[in-house]
Amino acid sequence: MTGGLVIAGLGPGNDALITPEVRAALDQATDIVGYIPYVERIAPRPDLTLHPSDNRVEIDRARHALEMASDGRRVVIVSSGDPGVFAMASALFEAVEHGAPHWRDLDIAVLPGITAMLAASAACGAPLGHDFCAINLSDNLKPWALIEKRLRLAVEADFAMAFYNPRSKSRPEGFEKALRTLQDACNDARPMIFARNVTRPDQSLRILPLSEAAPDMADMRTVVLLGSSQTRIIPRGGAAPFVYTPRSVEG
Amino acid sequence: MTGGLVIAGLGPGNDALITPEVRAALDQATDIVGYIPYVERIAPRPDLTLHPSDNRVEIDRARHALEMASDGRRVVIVSSGDPGVFAMASALFEAVEHGAPHWRDLDIAVLPGITAMLAASAACGAPLGHDFCAINLSDNLKPWALIEKRLRLAVEADFAMAFYNPRSKSRPEGFEKALRTLQDACNDARPMIFARNVTRPDQSLRILPLSEAAPDMADMRTVVLLGSSQTRIIPRGGAAPFVYTPRSVEG
Repeated sequence: MTGGLVIAGLGPGNDALITPEVRAALDQATDIVGYIPYVERIAPRPDLTLHPSDNRVEIDRARHALEMASDGRRVVIVSSGDPGVFAMASALFEAVEHGAPHWRDLDIAVLPGITAMLAASAACGAPLGHDFCAINLSDNLKPWALIEKRLRLAVEADFAMAFYNPRSKSRPEGFEKALRTLQDACNDARPMIFARNVTRPDQSLRILPLSEAAPDMADMRTVVLLGSSQTRIIPRGGAAPFVYTPRSVEG
Repeated sequence: MTGGLVIAGLGPGNDALITPEVRAALDQATDIVGYIPYVERIAPRPDLTLHPSDNRVEIDRARHALEMASDGRRVVIVSSGDPGVFAMASALFEAVEHGAPHWRDLDIAVLPGITAMLAASAACGAPLGHDFCAINLSDNLKPWALIEKRLRLAVEADFAMAFYNPRSKSRPEGFEKALRTLQDACNDARPMIFARNVTRPDQSLRILPLSEAAPDMADMRTVVLLGSSQTRIIPRGGAAPFVYTPRSVEG
């Protein structure tokens, strides 16, 4: 019985962004647990059991993984991006805290991955190159008023911002409200970046002033970045501009 | 002449966290540019020229890299962590914006890496599992008043927080002031995490209530995390506790 549980980040989509550490954990696993499209990224092997599950069953998925690890299996929970950023690691520890006491003694490791906002930032330059914040725009698990409050305070702090889960079919109105709040609070042409399917062959990047951003530019496969008041655009003839936030702010 | 410039993230220290994408860029490079300890991580090869340089010469380093790429060299600027998070990517684009017009036409790519805060978060659980911000505590390039303002607003927004460059020999008093501000603004026992040399063999993790944190617990090899008001500790007999921030906030 040499079971254990690893929560591993697969990065945003391109397999060349999977770390060797994560690759080794996948190679040694007996069981892979995760949301269907993430488990689909794992090549089948005779000695490996895949356990894909649907969205919004994170706690059930975590418990199942903990039970298998308790039985001596080497389980890897796969997450997109980094498991610690709006992904499975929090759900796993929530299950541990409220679950069987012996789960706390399991060998549990979180292996970091490239999270979507950093891949999106790299794809267009360095818009998150100064102080920034990351906000999950889904109000499935928190009140909308808290999101609204954080947006206004983030503008006041002049953070660059990254927005995860901006818009889904079941809640199309949230991102529209968020955009209105941001457009109302920022009286400048700071750039907004819509990065869809970032690092995948069908990646698309859209860079435009916040004032011209529209709700239907985002979906659940999009991570959205917003510059601070200091963020710069470097135009290039015939190519997409570079976007970066300088390291310095004048005193 | 097939020159180009790549700004690559080497991750926080453990080579098993270098992505295959970055590894391929290093293998194809003719020249490696970067801060001395990062260039030291690259194995010498007969066909590779290493250009280590000292700290605080980021713009000179960027210009040198751009000149070599213009001359047809395949140049990789190496950064610790992720190049877009308080690292070389912003400096590079600053040099591009204010430099020779033809630099804008160069083939320039940023390759993301595992940034220290996400490695530190993974090492202790998932303290950044809900909305969070990242703040560089160095006031070399911005006024201290702005840092102070951001700390207070981040507490008001109830973000978890990650602090880079918390304390150096040349400015030992900054982190002391930051701690006082945070202790003054947070009336609870939320956990603070000092992660030093994260992912390296001599990694150390210190987890304690913010009220017990002291300035000399941090140095320039430390990334510091602070939970939000919601962050939880899961005690474990004989092992370090898990720390995580739940996905949900009650309405």
